[in-house]
Amino acid sequence: MPTFAFAIGLPTLSRSGTCIDCFFPAPLKAPEGALEAAIHDQFAPGEAMIEPDAARAFINAHQPHAAPMLEADRPLVAVLLAKDGPIGSTAEAFLKLHLLSHRLALPNTLNLDGIFAHLQTVAWTTEGAVALDELATRQMRARVQGHHFEVLSVDKFPKMANYIVPSGVRIADSSRIRLGAYLGEGTTVMPYGAINFNAAALGPNMVEGRVSQGVVLGHGSDIGGSASIMGTLAGGGEIVISIGRQCLIGANAGTGIPLGDRCTIEAGLYITAGTRVALIDEDGNRTGPVKARELAGRSDLLFIRHSETGEVQCRVNRKAIALNEQLHAHN
Amino acid sequence: MPTFAFAIGLPTLSRSGTCIDCFFPAPLKAPEGALEAAIHDQFAPGEAMIEPDAARAFINAHQPHAAPMLEADRPLVAVLLAKDGPIGSTAEAFLKLHLLSHRLALPNTLNLDGIFAHLQTVAWTTEGAVALDELATRQMRARVQGHHFEVLSVDKFPKMANYIVPSGVRIADSSRIRLGAYLGEGTTVMPYGAINFNAAALGPNMVEGRVSQGVVLGHGSDIGGSASIMGTLAGGGEIVISIGRQCLIGANAGTGIPLGDRCTIEAGLYITAGTRVALIDEDGNRTGPVKARELAGRSDLLFIRHSETGEVQCRVNRKAIALNEQLHAHN
Amino acid sequence: MPTFAFAIGLPTLSRSGTCIDCFFPAPLKAPEGALEAAIHDQFAPGEAMIEPDAARAFINAHQPHAAPMLEADRPLVAVLLAKDGPIGSTAEAFLKLHLLSHRLALPNTLNLDGIFAHLQTVAWTTEGAVALDELATRQMRARVQGHHFEVLSVDKFPKMANYIVPSGVRIADSSRIRLGAYLGEGTTVMPYGAINFNAAALGPNMVEGRVSQGVVLGHGSDIGGSASIMGTLAGGGEIVISIGRQCLIGANAGTGIPLGDRCTIEAGLYITAGTRVALIDEDGNRTGPVKARELAGRSDLLFIRHSETGEVQCRVNRKAIALNEQLHAHN
Repeated sequence: MPTFAFAIGLPTLSRSGTCIDCFFPAPLKAPEGALEAAIHDQFAPGEAMIEPDAARAFINAHQPHAAPMLEADRPLVAVLLAKDGPIGSTAEAFLKLHLLSHRLALPNTLNLDGIFAHLQTVAWTTEGAVALDELATRQMRARVQGHHFEVLSVDKFPKMANYIVPSGVRIADSSRIRLGAYLGEGTTVMPYGAINFNAAALGPNMVEGRVSQGVVLGHGSDIGGSASIMGTLAGGGEIVISIGRQCLIGANAGTGIPLGDRCTIEAGLYITAGTRVALIDEDGNRTGPVKARELAGRSDLLFIRHSETGEVQCRVNRKAIALNEQLHAHN
Repeated sequence: MPTFAFAIGLPTLSRSGTCIDCFFPAPLKAPEGALEAAIHDQFAPGEAMIEPDAARAFINAHQPHAAPMLEADRPLVAVLLAKDGPIGSTAEAFLKLHLLSHRLALPNTLNLDGIFAHLQTVAWTTEGAVALDELATRQMRARVQGHHFEVLSVDKFPKMANYIVPSGVRIADSSRIRLGAYLGEGTTVMPYGAINFNAAALGPNMVEGRVSQGVVLGHGSDIGGSASIMGTLAGGGEIVISIGRQCLIGANAGTGIPLGDRCTIEAGLYITAGTRVALIDEDGNRTGPVKARELAGRSDLLFIRHSETGEVQCRVNRKAIALNEQLHAHN
Repeated sequence: MPTFAFAIGLPTLSRSGTCIDCFFPAPLKAPEGALEAAIHDQFAPGEAMIEPDAARAFINAHQPHAAPMLEADRPLVAVLLAKDGPIGSTAEAFLKLHLLSHRLALPNTLNLDGIFAHLQTVAWTTEGAVALDELATRQMRARVQGHHFEVLSVDKFPKMANYIVPSGVRIADSSRIRLGAYLGEGTTVMPYGAINFNAAALGPNMVEGRVSQGVVLGHGSDIGGSASIMGTLAGGGEIVISIGRQCLIGANAGTGIPLGDRCTIEAGLYITAGTRVALIDEDGNRTGPVKARELAGRSDLLFIRHSETGEVQCRVNRKAIALNEQLHAHN
């Protein structure tokens, strides 16, 4: 029997008993061999509330770093998914988000159908997840009792850092990275940086701009302050946008097309799929203009807006000359 | 006797007894009939500190959802305003900000004169509002005692979500929405979104940019990441800027003029009042250029910067042709 | 014997005994006379852990406002630096960052060599600084015990406001200002504002954009929403960028060159060192274009991108005419 994913977690239940949040300290993707056998031996497929004692043998044997979870005085949840189907529950949604942030799955490789339907909008507070219909009373009681109760966000997605801080990253403001973001080793996210769920900075990266849902940022690429990468949810339409290696998107710049490797967009310039771009090779020969979407995914491009003529130009290097001719043929 | 507004609240007093913050769980605007009669029967005009018992009958009868407030072991404040005059106290300032965030008043409809004078700059912390002259000692004592004390902001305005989370909204980072913001049903504010006091997203809206003081954003309009809407405080001068319905201000774009309905500003383009704009109708006929301020409030406009010539253009649709002629006449 | 700096602080130690954070409520720079003598009388040069009692006489006599620190039931750290050498320890790094935020030193005047090596990446949480190798267990235990534990950032630098809130400032979101930022009297930082360590807003300033490491913003200058000032770490290369007095960098604009006094960059325009700029004087005479780096540090300049031609222009006033001729000569 195949095993897509397995995890034991600590759920947060609303007063009415609904699961509104779930923390999985040690999620597993595609476990194999003895580990997979142990899972199937001790847990049933699907989702079940279990007493901590029912997880003790498995965790002590296979995930001793998660042992503190066994001290809980309330039930845990065990989720065992045979395959990567559409999301069927809140716990399942949280499990898939954990897989991404634990670097067990890359963006756009998981079936996230149904995620919005199965994540409730919740108040994330200094007392944890609170169902919205309990919020006003909780706020009032906290005020009366003289202790402070802070509402940090009201969202379907919590912040990643409260669930997992992957190794080798820096995060200036954790409220800007949702659970489900994938931050590779060596990723630094500055105060202007933001990474959505199902989006990645593969690392090392300096992220001072917006990495939208669906976007993957390649090794060594930097996203300048407030720079924008359109995602599938944010205007990029059907094309999933990725940025290759060693790219630089300047401050206040943006792209609506995928970029290959070693591409640069100068500070302040926004390239959309429909931007008409003049191509200039290393010898100064001009071709085009072409629509930027025709350059999607190409490497070694430098995009600027000429400061005397206002023309958007793409400087291409030798390797790209063949490309130019090909593009010219398209024209 | 007219009644503009009434509310019973929980004030935060500094050590020296000054009101630095006030929480009104159930503010009322223009109450009528039996409700208004009960208010005038039980409370005096103006502002008064009252024991919780003095509010018990009224709250139990008319605002039972606010009953937890009666458990306070310290005085409440009752504010009864006959008319919408200039702000005369901190509690009054907080009451008006609550009216906006409770969706009881739209931006630019309340008299906010004096609001800056009557709101102290306060440290908003994980222990609530703290007067600045007490802060350093509080921070030191917390460190000594080994508990953490977080200063979240130092501002005249607190974050809205600690007072009221209106129905049907999502807020990625509550620190970016001040009390006094009006968030209509269906408003989502992403990490880059920010809404000032006396500003509105009427909902449904996707807000990933800045909604400045005084700005009202109409139904169905989206503000892209880091997009900027100049407000009366932020460079827009005397004109209050509003955005109509079904508009799209692209990522990293901005406007210094009000927009009508169904207008689009392409990503990365900033339109100020003085921007000279060429007008192009559906048949490709050019008129203008006109200064963007002459287009203020018009509908069905698409603003772009031509990527080959650097010219800022406004594409207008059929309905707008008559408009063009009118504008041309102005020129 | 010279004394560069002295301070007594409360360190945070990781479980393994490493100093990961240090709070100095009353740092001193270049103390003189009796104060300096008292320091050398009672403390040894270098860095030492001391019992609170060993600091009692000094603090009671010279820094009574720091007396609450003496109530600590654990050792304090005393740091006495004879000169401004390279940073040699975590406590020393924190001391220098405090000097900047306490307005005792301006950016670019301290020797910060070694600061990255001596600041560990730490989880800054609602329970204070936590070493990363302890974090996962702490998070799990907090969940099990049903109390909330919030990871606010994961960074080498903590937020300034948890150490010092200088007089006369407003800070909309404290997570965007690192310890080591210098905020002068009258500085307001809005939600889009961010100020790095070793960067200053001398005040009064309205900061809604990014003030990068190394940048100094002069009196009366405003930085619009999401505006960008390149720093030595963020693309500005070797030139340290400063902004003079009474400048305005518009919303979504940016600069990669230093500006003199009374300069304006219009909203949405990004000037980099290599931008070719046409110069236009008050009589409409054109010179240039020149590269923007030739205008570095000049006063009374207005930068725009012409909305009909896309040309980047710099309007200079009468005082600047001589300048223009000089620039023209360079060309």
